[in-house]
Amino acid sequence: MVDISQIGEFGLIKRIRRGLGYKNKEVKEVVVGIGDDCAAIKLTKGLLLIATTDSLVEGVHFKLNTISPSLLGKKSVATNISDIAAMGGIPRYLLITIGIPPSLSVEYIDSLYKGIKEATESYNVIVIGGDTFRSDDRLIISITLIGEIEEEFLVRRGGAKVGDKIFVTGSLGDSALGLEILESGINDSRSVKVTQQSSPQSSPIDEIISRHILPTPRLEEGRVLATKGLASAMIDISDGLASDLRRICEESVVGARIYLKELPISDTLNNIVFTQDKSPYDYALYGGEDYELLFTVRGDKVKDILRYWEGMKTPIKEIGEIIEEDEGIVLIDEAYNIIPLIRDGYDHFLK
Amino acid sequence: MVDISQIGEFGLIKRIRRGLGYKNKEVKEVVVGIGDDCAAIKLTKGLLLIATTDSLVEGVHFKLNTISPSLLGKKSVATNISDIAAMGGIPRYLLITIGIPPSLSVEYIDSLYKGIKEATESYNVIVIGGDTFRSDDRLIISITLIGEIEEEFLVRRGGAKVGDKIFVTGSLGDSALGLEILESGINDSRSVKVTQQSSPQSSPIDEIISRHILPTPRLEEGRVLATKGLASAMIDISDGLASDLRRICEESVVGARIYLKELPISDTLNNIVFTQDKSPYDYALYGGEDYELLFTVRGDKVKDILRYWEGMKTPIKEIGEIIEEDEGIVLIDEAYNIIPLIRDGYDHFLK
Repeated sequence: MVDISQIGEFGLIKRIRRGLGYKNKEVKEVVVGIGDDCAAIKLTKGLLLIATTDSLVEGVHFKLNTISPSLLGKKSVATNISDIAAMGGIPRYLLITIGIPPSLSVEYIDSLYKGIKEATESYNVIVIGGDTFRSDDRLIISITLIGEIEEEFLVRRGGAKVGDKIFVTGSLGDSALGLEILESGINDSRSVKVTQQSSPQSSPIDEIISRHILPTPRLEEGRVLATKGLASAMIDISDGLASDLRRICEESVVGARIYLKELPISDTLNNIVFTQDKSPYDYALYGGEDYELLFTVRGDKVKDILRYWEGMKTPIKEIGEIIEEDEGIVLIDEAYNIIPLIRDGYDHFLK
Repeated sequence: MVDISQIGEFGLIKRIRRGLGYKNKEVKEVVVGIGDDCAAIKLTKGLLLIATTDSLVEGVHFKLNTISPSLLGKKSVATNISDIAAMGGIPRYLLITIGIPPSLSVEYIDSLYKGIKEATESYNVIVIGGDTFRSDDRLIISITLIGEIEEEFLVRRGGAKVGDKIFVTGSLGDSALGLEILESGINDSRSVKVTQQSSPQSSPIDEIISRHILPTPRLEEGRVLATKGLASAMIDISDGLASDLRRICEESVVGARIYLKELPISDTLNNIVFTQDKSPYDYALYGGEDYELLFTVRGDKVKDILRYWEGMKTPIKEIGEIIEEDEGIVLIDEAYNIIPLIRDGYDHFLK
């Protein structure tokens, strides 16, 4: 194991640059890549630039002993890709800032960047720059992702209208359950087996953990929703359905009605009674990091969406509808009781 | 004083957004600003996108008790502007990620963003997005700055050729001296007086400290050097002349000869014998954070540059010339001894 203090920041940056295997001439849009004061890029003519930034912080978003460096690298890319997906855009260029505790080995950093590189390759994204700093206490990965989009396809949070139907992709709450399993340690003997892509043979527990360790951003789905003009508003669910639905409602100045029994909940989440005081709905509503898409669809497009969705791998589900702002954001339970949605998702700053 | 845990992350973000006073409709190029999954921008037709990222970390780059939150906000913008200046570009859009210790008050964060806002306004830059996270141990400010440049004006690190003259803007070593004065505490009674713009009445010590606290990126100078085709290679001096000259030489595959007596050293640095074992040259060569521009000029353009520079506020100084790579990077002292430049600037990771 090589200590970072043996090679210094310049040595580390050279190593990272080499590891990313980036050659400026590989991609003609990249006029200047890593290794100058700025990167310089020729964007596609006529497209808008889109940009997002998101960080993963040890002790806040992950623990070193529950995720491998390579998967952590991949996850840090995936969470940013998810924001591009939620606009309907195409991810293109990435800048990575890493705060590195000197106690981490150079090999750890190599693996982290290997994960980042593999993830960027799988999304056709190119690393164009970054920064490193010494962070005595914890590992910090902060990514800015730049993408492109046709102006007419841009899907914002603020486009929902009364009468729109509310949809989500995939299933909700699995990631929060996966995190609980990881933190409980009950999977200790298994966690090393968690792989990037859960195979058909992997156990339900492994799959649930995978949903947390390496969420799949719904990039293709977001792009279809945008380019076919199907979504009137869209957001990715990073802080939990309750929080992110509130953001859609605030930006669109509307209310929402969600039918609990329509929430897409995986069999595993339904079957595992993990803590006695929570129902699967709690995970689905308040659990974070699902990275599913939450979107609204005009009433007259619902038929279209179901037709366009034939052949798509990830299912979508109608879970409610947009109502007037003064009706608030409400849940309808199985007995048709109306429950105002008060609680939000997880907030790192609140006690 | 309001505690951050009282308002939570959502409350904090709303407050930041309000504080930045950003209205999407203010600037027509900003199609989507703060408050969606991504920002969306219409870049100027025909220009390249340029992007850079740089962080300031408590305990590594600053201490809370030696810089006010407002000046810290300004400095975090200035260091990124400097990278855009070093390409010859125009800064445009900014994303800020802040790692916030819960012990900081909401008022502190307000002041920090006030500084960021003032700095962005002075450079015509718009904040388009960001991220916040809880950082238990230290304040972290990480900025990604997006700019634009005409492809033909782009000045890279790798353009220096044998025979080019080496120039710097302003003076070198003041920032490192300013940091030493701050850390020694000998200015304790004065430090509160350090203001953003040192006035003609401020003491030399105050001015030196200002050079560290709030460096002035050489944006206008970089732009002139680029658009007039004067600089063949350029970098901003963030880690010290020695380190950043090495970067120019590595990227350009050349060597360099620097005349010590030509280094632009301020009267204050020359007059203050602060520590006995260092000369002003040590500060000028190895001190970091000067944020001056280091650039090379073809022999036949030296006359042009002196003509173009009439009327510019910041002086420039020829300090040496580019030589063959195998001649190395060398210093020529006052007795015309040739001293190989071995040491580099400050490295946060080296012990």
